[in-house]
Amino acid sequence: MPGRLITLTTDFGVTDHYAGVLKGVIAAIAPLARVVDITHDIAPYEIAEGAFTIDQVSRYFPKRTIHVIVVDPGVGSERRAILAEAHGQFFVAPDNGVLAMMLAREPKPRVRHITNDKYFRHPVSNTFHGRDIFSPVAAHLAAGVAPARFGPRIDDYLRPRSFAPVRTGKRVWTGTVLKVDRFGNCITNFPTADFPELALRHFEMLAGIQAVTKFARFFSESTPGELCVMPGSSGFLEIVANQTPAAKALGISSGAPVELTVY
Amino acid sequence: MPGRLITLTTDFGVTDHYAGVLKGVIAAIAPLARVVDITHDIAPYEIAEGAFTIDQVSRYFPKRTIHVIVVDPGVGSERRAILAEAHGQFFVAPDNGVLAMMLAREPKPRVRHITNDKYFRHPVSNTFHGRDIFSPVAAHLAAGVAPARFGPRIDDYLRPRSFAPVRTGKRVWTGTVLKVDRFGNCITNFPTADFPELALRHFEMLAGIQAVTKFARFFSESTPGELCVMPGSSGFLEIVANQTPAAKALGISSGAPVELTVY
Amino acid sequence: MPGRLITLTTDFGVTDHYAGVLKGVIAAIAPLARVVDITHDIAPYEIAEGAFTIDQVSRYFPKRTIHVIVVDPGVGSERRAILAEAHGQFFVAPDNGVLAMMLAREPKPRVRHITNDKYFRHPVSNTFHGRDIFSPVAAHLAAGVAPARFGPRIDDYLRPRSFAPVRTGKRVWTGTVLKVDRFGNCITNFPTADFPELALRHFEMLAGIQAVTKFARFFSESTPGELCVMPGSSGFLEIVANQTPAAKALGISSGAPVELTVY
Repeated sequence: MPGRLITLTTDFGVTDHYAGVLKGVIAAIAPLARVVDITHDIAPYEIAEGAFTIDQVSRYFPKRTIHVIVVDPGVGSERRAILAEAHGQFFVAPDNGVLAMMLAREPKPRVRHITNDKYFRHPVSNTFHGRDIFSPVAAHLAAGVAPARFGPRIDDYLRPRSFAPVRTGKRVWTGTVLKVDRFGNCITNFPTADFPELALRHFEMLAGIQAVTKFARFFSESTPGELCVMPGSSGFLEIVANQTPAAKALGISSGAPVELTVY
Repeated sequence: MPGRLITLTTDFGVTDHYAGVLKGVIAAIAPLARVVDITHDIAPYEIAEGAFTIDQVSRYFPKRTIHVIVVDPGVGSERRAILAEAHGQFFVAPDNGVLAMMLAREPKPRVRHITNDKYFRHPVSNTFHGRDIFSPVAAHLAAGVAPARFGPRIDDYLRPRSFAPVRTGKRVWTGTVLKVDRFGNCITNFPTADFPELALRHFEMLAGIQAVTKFARFFSESTPGELCVMPGSSGFLEIVANQTPAAKALGISSGAPVELTVY
Repeated sequence: MPGRLITLTTDFGVTDHYAGVLKGVIAAIAPLARVVDITHDIAPYEIAEGAFTIDQVSRYFPKRTIHVIVVDPGVGSERRAILAEAHGQFFVAPDNGVLAMMLAREPKPRVRHITNDKYFRHPVSNTFHGRDIFSPVAAHLAAGVAPARFGPRIDDYLRPRSFAPVRTGKRVWTGTVLKVDRFGNCITNFPTADFPELALRHFEMLAGIQAVTKFARFFSESTPGELCVMPGSSGFLEIVANQTPAAKALGISSGAPVELTVY
């Protein structure tokens, strides 16, 4: 049987030693665990970006995978550390909303407040809980410690708010750009499944300095550089341009408002 | 026996979730496979850079390694997915030339058109075949599915063109910069083995704004900042400068023309 | 029993093929070894940064881990390759000071000059000893070759110099910034343990264009953007600012001088 998978999603970057330290801590506690880098390049302190990433990535991993997510601007304050069970997997993270999108898909999450400092690295620093709390807890879990040992169940963890667009008129919805990816594609929060007839309708998606009115099912249905709305691989509508960064053409970045009018 | 190796070479970057998704898909299908990141930082859509990278890297891996290469500007169009067997290894990639340099070294490659959608992830998106075709196929191969199961042999895959310099005069060759590396070294397409006497001859290698006339076998044969031609570790002549980025001094980047005159 | 751990710390970057080549070389020699990326983003040729990184990271890894460190501006010259045993672990690196900080913590290091070319990859290039010497030696060590087989013990390896601040007055110490991390925190070489009463005293830490006089134990003891001195997670005092890059506010980078006056 292969060792348990532990994935790492952080805003530590890879020029510093922090990500390597997590791997050392895990290897020392759980020598059989297999560590998988998701990314260490979440923008510093950007909880929303971390929330989107772990929500997207975790759905492809097998049951029992343990995910460590460290985007933690509140480290050293009173924010709690939590261990969440959802979708048959485990998530170790600060209780700051970074798990909210993933939890919103799970009808019956079990969330624990991590309090048992027997499983911490001591002394616990005020600035690096990734090393002292999150990765040791994940490693002990991988090594066979039962979830209940880490702390009590709680229900008042940061509640998932809705991530869906808001209907602001009869034919108008207001949403946001969840993420601009490396290719400049703008991933909106409009679920493709909620707008099944968009390809057949006149519509206008307003973002940044332009209104996009063309629908394309794939890139080769558009000409290079042409802005279009496309059903993206993440389950959301995206504003894209063939081999061109759409975000630059629109002048927008993550968090930008998006307004959709369907005629 | 250790799990099969699956290497990943993509232009997905590491700030997005795409590379992590590939790892999840593979872990779910082939839990014993061991995933190795080559790079996710191929420049977006740069097929030639991907071709150079996988040609260089794959030759060091053991037999039976499975390489996944996703540099795929034509995703969603009619370009085919292929599974190539060469050098005792396996390569899963789009049929767009990204395997051409590697295939040019193999006298008898076996190339299959990947058609058996039993081994795809469904529904197959129009924009993310890395997730839906390339990594599931690699994972099923790692899990023991026979290559012939994925699709029929083809011979009309994108033929490797020649990557060698062209002789344009009695003593003149015209070539190109295959890659500028992180250190600013300019890796040309002039095979060191084809110019064995260069160290003993007068020559001029013209690239960008300067002609380089010094030959050095290693960096300490030159002074800091001095441009020279050096036999590089990849088997090609390189234009380098001791502890200085030669590409900046020359004002060139990948793809720049290079002219060699040997007197 | 899990395969031996081999960690990689280099200045190769991840856009080139070099890091991937190391992984291939290791996999071919030691198929059971498990390779862990620490970082490939040490600034090119920055030995001091490599020395800080491996000193910090290695202390968290289990005994018998093998660390490969390639920051090697002198490759091809007469600088030696060494295999060091310290803290129950192994370190394969050029003898250029990149192991100095780590060795300074070990009372009885055993250092060998790597001379046995039976364990090299041939032909040995003049520019890529990471591929031809350091990673094959690490892999053979992982595969069970005894350390003594690689070469003779030496005592004249590059001696660790002191990394501590210098006392330059009755109440004045002069030190340096070891590293500016991704968050803009300035990690100084002032060990927190050497200044235990700093929180209770008036002091002034001068760096770049500002004197910092506030002490904080953790970020939430300061206001956003406020510069303070804080005991960092790496065992050193840091100049930080809550959710703000302190290095930018001070206008400094790695290597900048720091002067501490305690009143």
